Amino acid sequence: MNIGVIGANECNQDIYNIAERVGSLIAEKSAVLVCGGRRGVMEAAAKGAKKFKGKTIGILPGLNRNEANNFIDYPIATGIGQARNLIVVLNSDAIIAVGGEYGTLSEIALALKHGISVVALSSWALEKICDEKDMNNFFPVNTAEEAVHKAFNLAQQKKSLKKILE
Amino acid sequence: MNIGVIGANECNQDIYNIAERVGSLIAEKSAVLVCGGRRGVMEAAAKGAKKFKGKTIGILPGLNRNEANNFIDYPIATGIGQARNLIVVLNSDAIIAVGGEYGTLSEIALALKHGISVVALSSWALEKICDEKDMNNFFPVNTAEEAVHKAFNLAQQKKSLKKILE
Amino acid sequence: MNIGVIGANECNQDIYNIAERVGSLIAEKSAVLVCGGRRGVMEAAAKGAKKFKGKTIGILPGLNRNEANNFIDYPIATGIGQARNLIVVLNSDAIIAVGGEYGTLSEIALALKHGISVVALSSWALEKICDEKDMNNFFPVNTAEEAVHKAFNLAQQKKSLKKILE
Amino acid sequence: MNIGVIGANECNQDIYNIAERVGSLIAEKSAVLVCGGRRGVMEAAAKGAKKFKGKTIGILPGLNRNEANNFIDYPIATGIGQARNLIVVLNSDAIIAVGGEYGTLSEIALALKHGISVVALSSWALEKICDEKDMNNFFPVNTAEEAVHKAFNLAQQKKSLKKILE
Repeated sequence: MNIGVIGANECNQDIYNIAERVGSLIAEKSAVLVCGGRRGVMEAAAKGAKKFKGKTIGILPGLNRNEANNFIDYPIATGIGQARNLIVVLNSDAIIAVGGEYGTLSEIALALKHGISVVALSSWALEKICDEKDMNNFFPVNTAEEAVHKAFNLAQQKKSLKKILE
Repeated sequence: MNIGVIGANECNQDIYNIAERVGSLIAEKSAVLVCGGRRGVMEAAAKGAKKFKGKTIGILPGLNRNEANNFIDYPIATGIGQARNLIVVLNSDAIIAVGGEYGTLSEIALALKHGISVVALSSWALEKICDEKDMNNFFPVNTAEEAVHKAFNLAQQKKSLKKILE
Repeated sequence: MNIGVIGANECNQDIYNIAERVGSLIAEKSAVLVCGGRRGVMEAAAKGAKKFKGKTIGILPGLNRNEANNFIDYPIATGIGQARNLIVVLNSDAIIAVGGEYGTLSEIALALKHGISVVALSSWALEKICDEKDMNNFFPVNTAEEAVHKAFNLAQQKKSLKKILE
Repeated sequence: MNIGVIGANECNQDIYNIAERVGSLIAEKSAVLVCGGRRGVMEAAAKGAKKFKGKTIGILPGLNRNEANNFIDYPIATGIGQARNLIVVLNSDAIIAVGGEYGTLSEIALALKHGISVVALSSWALEKICDEKDMNNFFPVNTAEEAVHKAFNLAQQKKSLKKILE
């Protein structure tokens, strides 16, 4: 199972700590962490995952694997810039957004477009501007624990559904 | 000057009419209309532009130029799916969002990420969930006339700024 | 009808002259010239086309339409680097390769992969290293006139075939 | 260290066996195998690598990780079709081409364009149609053993060079 963590390349210490905790909890549950491979929230989540010997994949915007942070096991250089946001999303069974700016918003939108659930932690409050019926894949939560718990349930449901459909 | 019009592949008649009016006003002012090349809002805007002999470019998700609607002068097949949303955005000096679902939201986010102004007409109300200081590139408006007027002003400002910087 | 012209970003004067002639002949026959939008062969072909008031599209690797040469009517910034080579290819009904280095070779290969015919002028001599039966979409020629004549025939055949299939 | 193996989605048994041997030798030397994730040569190489408990990454063209073959540890769905060939290339320190058709040729060309060495085994004989001086990154070999030996040397040289430059 792959859980995506998305968030900005720069963030304050509070957001960093939350993202690190999210990463640790994902690794404790033995899922692979997928992220954008760079600094800020992406680094924090990967650092948290490595504390618990989790596996981490970083989908990078540039041509060079060296631009990954130090906690990425498998950096993937794409060379396609922000178009790589789609690839982060496609490789996640569920996504946790931690804080985030416009890049994160584009990833949330692409995830929802492709039917991938998003759990939002101190992130974009889309639930306030969207009809409830259209928000059945978007879940605001309050803690790292809730976020990871919810994301795993959603990813699990999706896998079960896929199996039934096959 | 290129003005982008973004919106969903399916829309109701009200949104269709607004998008068509937006397209007509863009063409009357002799700008090139850039869009995603498909149905719904994209078709309506292109149709409106062609009424006034405007030029239209459609950046398509698939491999085949034939998937463009009938009002696109220059269809560009990309073969990169929703990653093409970035290309729609990059080729617009300012963007008008008309209605829209998640694909549109991803385009708004990518535009703001790349410093391109967005005028929103019956679209995502980001101004309600974002700090005012971060919203200096996002402008909700109420009519097609306001939208096109604002978009041209923003695109013009940007061009002037670029010239000064060069 | 769109004819693609591919070739290197830097070239000698002989190749430049040939590419310019190719561009002129394409415009005289009223096809749209598609190219990578930059210098060398791409600039020469676009310059040739504009002498005869042809239309030119440039599919650029970077984020900025300003990186197009001066003879491009419709620059398309992609932001996806060399992955944009696929987009040049997909938007051509037939392709003329003039000289060229590795980027050109990748475009020839992508064209043949997608069933798009390639006419080669002082370019990669694939016919020497490939079985004849596999080379039914690749045509070495000797002059700009031959190249454009052949490319138009191939593009026309393809359009006729498509119509029959529909 | 990442070694890329490229080749066609369909291949005969001889090529399959060679690719499988190549994959095994890469895993024995503890490098990560990067490939396009699908059938034919990609499946064979990944299968060979898993026999020796190697790690395998598959960069897929489509939206769905399920399209990977059974021997891929980390499938990466890109959703950008053949534009994903660039990503296969960028994530390899050196590349081994086994047999191959036009898709493979596009990958060889993109690798050489980005300065990544290619070892060719029963593959495109570019050395026959290219000036010797331009071919200093392309190495035809005769056996799987030679191919892997050469690829590791080239990847090692590149890493050393990078370190010196930093």
